[in-house]
Amino acid sequence: MTTEQLIEQIKIKKSFLAIGLDVDLSKIPPHLLDTEDPIFEFNKAIIDATHHLCVAYKPNTAFYEAYGLKGWKALEKTINYLNENYPEIFTIADAKRGDIGNTSTMYAKAFFEDLAFDSVTVAPYMGKDSVEPFLAFKDKHTIVLALTSNQGAFDFQTKLVDGKEVYKQVLETSKTWENSENLMYVVGATKAEYLTDIRKIIPESFLLVPGVGAQGGSLQEVCKYGMTQNVGLLINSSRGIIYASQGKDFAEAAAVKAKTLQQDMASILNAQ
Amino acid sequence: MTTEQLIEQIKIKKSFLAIGLDVDLSKIPPHLLDTEDPIFEFNKAIIDATHHLCVAYKPNTAFYEAYGLKGWKALEKTINYLNENYPEIFTIADAKRGDIGNTSTMYAKAFFEDLAFDSVTVAPYMGKDSVEPFLAFKDKHTIVLALTSNQGAFDFQTKLVDGKEVYKQVLETSKTWENSENLMYVVGATKAEYLTDIRKIIPESFLLVPGVGAQGGSLQEVCKYGMTQNVGLLINSSRGIIYASQGKDFAEAAAVKAKTLQQDMASILNAQ
Repeated sequence: MTTEQLIEQIKIKKSFLAIGLDVDLSKIPPHLLDTEDPIFEFNKAIIDATHHLCVAYKPNTAFYEAYGLKGWKALEKTINYLNENYPEIFTIADAKRGDIGNTSTMYAKAFFEDLAFDSVTVAPYMGKDSVEPFLAFKDKHTIVLALTSNQGAFDFQTKLVDGKEVYKQVLETSKTWENSENLMYVVGATKAEYLTDIRKIIPESFLLVPGVGAQGGSLQEVCKYGMTQNVGLLINSSRGIIYASQGKDFAEAAAVKAKTLQQDMASILNAQ
Repeated sequence: MTTEQLIEQIKIKKSFLAIGLDVDLSKIPPHLLDTEDPIFEFNKAIIDATHHLCVAYKPNTAFYEAYGLKGWKALEKTINYLNENYPEIFTIADAKRGDIGNTSTMYAKAFFEDLAFDSVTVAPYMGKDSVEPFLAFKDKHTIVLALTSNQGAFDFQTKLVDGKEVYKQVLETSKTWENSENLMYVVGATKAEYLTDIRKIIPESFLLVPGVGAQGGSLQEVCKYGMTQNVGLLINSSRGIIYASQGKDFAEAAAVKAKTLQQDMASILNAQ
């Protein structure tokens, strides 16, 4: 999917919501555990109930790998279901990968070709030659961790290098990489006040913003400091939406939560 | 496996070699492609031919994920084969994972419980709460990327923060994390001259050292600057060993390459 197609979907749906499909078998409605593939059945119901309210889905690979082969199979079925039934949806493999060049190419093939995601999150610690192999894929998007939503972000990301924080070095350096137009960045909603500075470095790039909801970030703050003319934001919510109910009404309850966020987003877009 | 058991194996085998099982279907002997599971058949033959010469195997997850479900299945079969037939071998999932706390716990479960690896590599960019969930597992080892073997290591890892390189900040900060005795570190062999400084910060910790062979690092240099009383090194070689031949003799050819490295290691250990 091109960035232009993503922007078009945001305008059509008046939503820049990404829903995190982080399926924990101990948290899903118990009645699903009797089905052959509880993870996929859960995702399918959530997707069918919420696809008109969001522009992206973001399965975090950890939740699938934890269940081994059947987890990976559920991930494969989920992305195939999305690509077949809702091709207008932007798909994000939240995998936080990164390795030396030839190995990063294998990861890129795994997520862009084998699973056919539109985008993948990557960690920047290993530098240019660990990220560029992902950037080489046309109409695919590589979402680099810049400033994450967790407390540990202050351990290294905000440390000063030559008077400039490490995450700003990541933003600036990454702009010089080949095919950098395929870059997006992760910036946590819990650090909305940093967005003014971030937008000075990357005025147009899309940001994937986790941390609204369960982690305490504010949608309004993120939009105030981070929104661009083309919106430039994908706000992710996972637990706050998908675990709204543990009953048989879980998908409808998720849709209610998603609708609330979508309506807040529509108000913000209408006021622009 | 405990660190003491690993040290014991190193002394018995006079080897601190880790063999990287980075299986690329375009590089393995063509006759294996007709088998039901070429990746596993390749690994099994390599393991059977080399297990007495090394103390560890390190599959890099990228090479398995790139083949989707059948790749993940081959990874599962490989680790099960190792645990059943060669329980004295230290196993490393080279996965370079890392995420916010509850998600890192899922990754830890994937590699330590579901797949039952002894260790996993993790990226430090997201800080303390992204690594500590791995450290909570008893007799499991978390191998943090410190100074990697690739060119991109110079993009961020060697940048100065308060007069000290980022990778040194990672080493020092990680020592304060809970259960830090379960930490090991990745330091590339291509940067052997940094090992003197590194040993001042972590005098005893085991280092996983990639980059000897294909990437140009020197075994002698790494040992000169990085070896401890308990050896403290796992030297990894992947392509240099496993792709020694594309013929039917591939496993024997791999054993010859592994034997050469093991003999060099034995000489170094005997000279200690």
